[in-house]
Amino acid sequence: MAVCFVWQTAMVILFGAFVRYNKEVDAHWPETKIHENITSDIENDFYFRYPSFQDVHVMIFVGFGFLMTFMKRYSFGAVGFNFLIAAFGIQWALLMQGWFHHIDSTDGMIKIGVENLINADFCVASCLIAFGAVLGKVSPVQLMVMTLFEVTLFAVEEYIILNLIHANDAGGSMVIHAFGAYFGLAVSWVLYRPNLKESSQLNGSVYHSDVFAMIGTLFLWMFWPSFNSAICKHGDGQHRAAINTYLSLAATVLTTFAISSLFQKHGKLDMVHIQNSTLAGGVAVGTAAEFMLMPYGSLIVGFFCGLISTLGYIYLTPFMERKLKIQDTCGIHNLHGMPGVIGGIVGAISAAGATESVYGQQGLINTFVFKDDFKHRTPAVQGGYQAAAMCIAVSFGIGGGILVGLILRMPLWGDPTDDNCFDDEVYWEVPEEEDSADPVLQYNNHTVVNKHAEV
Amino acid sequence: MAVCFVWQTAMVILFGAFVRYNKEVDAHWPETKIHENITSDIENDFYFRYPSFQDVHVMIFVGFGFLMTFMKRYSFGAVGFNFLIAAFGIQWALLMQGWFHHIDSTDGMIKIGVENLINADFCVASCLIAFGAVLGKVSPVQLMVMTLFEVTLFAVEEYIILNLIHANDAGGSMVIHAFGAYFGLAVSWVLYRPNLKESSQLNGSVYHSDVFAMIGTLFLWMFWPSFNSAICKHGDGQHRAAINTYLSLAATVLTTFAISSLFQKHGKLDMVHIQNSTLAGGVAVGTAAEFMLMPYGSLIVGFFCGLISTLGYIYLTPFMERKLKIQDTCGIHNLHGMPGVIGGIVGAISAAGATESVYGQQGLINTFVFKDDFKHRTPAVQGGYQAAAMCIAVSFGIGGGILVGLILRMPLWGDPTDDNCFDDEVYWEVPEEEDSADPVLQYNNHTVVNKHAEV
Amino acid sequence: MAVCFVWQTAMVILFGAFVRYNKEVDAHWPETKIHENITSDIENDFYFRYPSFQDVHVMIFVGFGFLMTFMKRYSFGAVGFNFLIAAFGIQWALLMQGWFHHIDSTDGMIKIGVENLINADFCVASCLIAFGAVLGKVSPVQLMVMTLFEVTLFAVEEYIILNLIHANDAGGSMVIHAFGAYFGLAVSWVLYRPNLKESSQLNGSVYHSDVFAMIGTLFLWMFWPSFNSAICKHGDGQHRAAINTYLSLAATVLTTFAISSLFQKHGKLDMVHIQNSTLAGGVAVGTAAEFMLMPYGSLIVGFFCGLISTLGYIYLTPFMERKLKIQDTCGIHNLHGMPGVIGGIVGAISAAGATESVYGQQGLINTFVFKDDFKHRTPAVQGGYQAAAMCIAVSFGIGGGILVGLILRMPLWGDPTDDNCFDDEVYWEVPEEEDSADPVLQYNNHTVVNKHAEV
Repeated sequence: MAVCFVWQTAMVILFGAFVRYNKEVDAHWPETKIHENITSDIENDFYFRYPSFQDVHVMIFVGFGFLMTFMKRYSFGAVGFNFLIAAFGIQWALLMQGWFHHIDSTDGMIKIGVENLINADFCVASCLIAFGAVLGKVSPVQLMVMTLFEVTLFAVEEYIILNLIHANDAGGSMVIHAFGAYFGLAVSWVLYRPNLKESSQLNGSVYHSDVFAMIGTLFLWMFWPSFNSAICKHGDGQHRAAINTYLSLAATVLTTFAISSLFQKHGKLDMVHIQNSTLAGGVAVGTAAEFMLMPYGSLIVGFFCGLISTLGYIYLTPFMERKLKIQDTCGIHNLHGMPGVIGGIVGAISAAGATESVYGQQGLINTFVFKDDFKHRTPAVQGGYQAAAMCIAVSFGIGGGILVGLILRMPLWGDPTDDNCFDDEVYWEVPEEEDSADPVLQYNNHTVVNKHAEV
Repeated sequence: MAVCFVWQTAMVILFGAFVRYNKEVDAHWPETKIHENITSDIENDFYFRYPSFQDVHVMIFVGFGFLMTFMKRYSFGAVGFNFLIAAFGIQWALLMQGWFHHIDSTDGMIKIGVENLINADFCVASCLIAFGAVLGKVSPVQLMVMTLFEVTLFAVEEYIILNLIHANDAGGSMVIHAFGAYFGLAVSWVLYRPNLKESSQLNGSVYHSDVFAMIGTLFLWMFWPSFNSAICKHGDGQHRAAINTYLSLAATVLTTFAISSLFQKHGKLDMVHIQNSTLAGGVAVGTAAEFMLMPYGSLIVGFFCGLISTLGYIYLTPFMERKLKIQDTCGIHNLHGMPGVIGGIVGAISAAGATESVYGQQGLINTFVFKDDFKHRTPAVQGGYQAAAMCIAVSFGIGGGILVGLILRMPLWGDPTDDNCFDDEVYWEVPEEEDSADPVLQYNNHTVVNKHAEV
Repeated sequence: MAVCFVWQTAMVILFGAFVRYNKEVDAHWPETKIHENITSDIENDFYFRYPSFQDVHVMIFVGFGFLMTFMKRYSFGAVGFNFLIAAFGIQWALLMQGWFHHIDSTDGMIKIGVENLINADFCVASCLIAFGAVLGKVSPVQLMVMTLFEVTLFAVEEYIILNLIHANDAGGSMVIHAFGAYFGLAVSWVLYRPNLKESSQLNGSVYHSDVFAMIGTLFLWMFWPSFNSAICKHGDGQHRAAINTYLSLAATVLTTFAISSLFQKHGKLDMVHIQNSTLAGGVAVGTAAEFMLMPYGSLIVGFFCGLISTLGYIYLTPFMERKLKIQDTCGIHNLHGMPGVIGGIVGAISAAGATESVYGQQGLINTFVFKDDFKHRTPAVQGGYQAAAMCIAVSFGIGGGILVGLILRMPLWGDPTDDNCFDDEVYWEVPEEEDSADPVLQYNNHTVVNKHAEV
């Protein structure tokens, strides 16, 4: 893990060379206020964005981290490596996104504020999605390398979609979710382990690890309205994004429960579906969150996503593993891949169908930012660009994933053997409990040790 | 669970027919701003309410959900069904509360914004309270039916208390807690299972399930100030409600610890009390949260609630089960029932005692909304109405609960047998761990399977 | 625990005699608005401070509480006693800090508002830090007594540092962390138990208790930017504090992972480091959070703290236990002690080096509050006072800790025997699981019971 040390040193140097505070963060703010005729400190973007930022921050570290703790002996790795790559990713994302979006032309410096922190968290979300596909099958060094490349690609893709194509993607259905998911699936496809199924008996949950995972699920679910609204336009846009997401997620929960029990043997509910598919509505409403989707529109999106995502877990994931040689540990294709694509399509359709009667003249301009270079764009054309954006996100994901997968296949990174997959023992000091007062657990541990000795 | 599917479809249709965005959410907001002379986006209610909303949202899904995970083998059901009925309840509540409170007379539509989301979460809180009484003894379909009726009744009761009687109930001691608790207790009374005690050995905790429950407790405790202040008047009212709740809860913790150790055999603390009674102060200060209760007044309320609630767990709950045939799984009578009633009484007394010297002339009018139809009401009269409101809440709870309990007794809903109570195995795919690397757990599972076979 | 009862009664009386609402909380707010020419309710400090307050509140109760649940059989004590002493401490802190800082000279009353709640939470943080040193080795009554004295000392120390010396300490590196840590270590030194190591086999973790502890770690880590910015000046100061903390913490994570794996036998990661050292950067950036530390400066601080803190766990903690007779259960010296001192030094240096070109003329005055009595102070002089403040904090900690330690050694407080340390059985009704359906756990329990019988 010396790589952490080296990279953190690099971060210090790069931040020293390139990153400064923006005008709302800098101590010259009193002068800025006078200069820009700002009357109150409340107009500092901090007060508009910070509560949403904190919700997003919880999603990244507790949400994603705990969602992946479901495995019986990979909880340390799930929450720990999630922590590591997110902490690295946000720094690298501040730089990469800064170079593409926030260069101050007067001094060539990246100027950061609270909105940059949100965007960095967003970027890292796509890395954590990809992490879900390879969970338990790669080394921490591989994860660091993957994150390095994925953040870089993300910044390029985001620049193309948001700036060049001028597509809308408030909650990142395309930019974050579709991209991250197909990236992760491509990596997992390249790193296919044909003998994994037979050798590993650890790819499953125990009772309490499933409860831990619900912590992740619920914090993701609750704060998703903040995620989708965090960088929306102030006022009605932010308000609308939160409400659309809230409604879509509520609908998803019901269809997930319905499908989970109806399509299972014995008619019992499956925790995997409840932990994951209930979130699909939040993904799918992301692109269009800021649009006039209407409350029932949001419910419809959530309705179908719960349905498709749960069916994906039941039928598609086993099919992908068997036939397509894609091993998707957390089922990110069902939670982020398909819902992300649906989100892109919903965005394209609802943009194309936007009218002045629904949005108001100024509302239409504000929502789609038909200003400056884009002031002559019509909703129909915007719809086309939205669709194009979705294709770009998926292409970048698949292409980038294959490339990075090939890099990760080099025998340099200390990846675990098939037998060591999904096992914290390889990278963590797991409590041995040999001196425990508890003879049963002690016995248990001896057995595990013996098993390892046999291998 | 096909019922989820059907009801979600109904929700889509009803939202399509009746629900639209309010003016702060609609894309016509730029026109609204000009029309209503609003100068800044910060005046959009989103920025006043959203952080509180998110805190309340956490209480509903993580707070209530995890509080009920304390049982050794019903954690999936606790957190999962909590999730299901809350997600359904908020949609139905948006409709029901909308019809009573937020119809736009110009077009007959329900207009929703962030305040409606908070109110929907509040309504669902009363359902989750009732869930606590029947936890582990009903099927998910029964819970859905119970929620459907309870939300409906809640909307009626709330309309009577807040609009017709014009009582104050910022934190819902009466409207939410007393109503929800007596509703749940009445349902549980109708569904009494005489042989439950003997048959079930699962009605208890294990070490780690008690720790999980503390997650619920703490998120409820910490965010209760947000709950009680979420829909208060802006400015001093909201500020005061938060501080009163903070103080009351702090006092409750100390008396709960004191009583728990003093009245137990061995002088040891009981996790059940710490998990539940520490919250009673938040319930009891709800109605009067916005009033000039004064800091010491809040402490006094919290002081007595910790005391009464803990004693309730020690003496009253066993008595109710033995003599009154009310099986109250989570002890909601101690956490929500009695404290809710106390809250109503505190509210009535402090309203009746309100004076212009304490509140200021304008402050008195603002706090009690002595405006329009109610502009001639005096504090003393208000106190009377507050007391009446409390009686209505309890009556609605008991009456509605008996009615709904009778509906739930119909042999339609797949309720579990006495032997299957408090057991996730009935409704969930519980991890079997047969292919586990862990022989002890495997052994354990075999035994469980055998036990079931014998039954 | 009758002490809880008595003290809570005292709190009621003292609050009745001394504590009132401040003008932003009082119902006379409408008059205040007119009088002070405040145009909007949004200017009520509630809307500036409350979201940060709630984040801090989560850190105190969930963050600290769960961070300490790592031990296999002391999770109830960790989260429960944390709850108890925090709930008591905030009340006592409101009084003590009120007497020193918030007396209204017109009527001699303490006037409280949301900022006081934040400060009370801050004060309690120092008590919970000290709790970490003695975790598992003291009785709840001892903890209550310790908290009573520590809060009192804290208020004095805080008054000297912030008001008399006029040092800056936004995030409390000195006032909270260094003071709390050295206080706790001094108490632990006085209460040294020479035979603890041999007798206790419970001072360690199990798999799931380590995952519980990560809940605490992550909520502390995520909300630390709110902690350090919660009482900063509005606008740029608050904004800057949040960003500096965010960056510092991110850097700490990487160096912690690096050192943890590089300096361990087998090259494996140690959960203790990940749970604790990753937070050191938040501590160390506290004093200077509001300064123009620059993004790279924050990274550098975080970089070194991750390094020093992790090395502390590996080398210093065992040394302190063996040679200095200081038993530091949670390693607070590595998480709060050293990083707190570093934070003080960073603050002194960056204050001394502050220039008008970096801060702007008004910015310099605002940031260091060079106003009124202190309007002629220069940055260089301020640097000297910052250094003095750090020495005062450490001295108060050590001196106070020794004093309070001596009080706690009196044979009055029912402290546990060496054999009972780190064991919830002494103070809690731990679920016995004798009637469990699970023969393995049952067997396990019998054994534990036997072991106890032998003792």
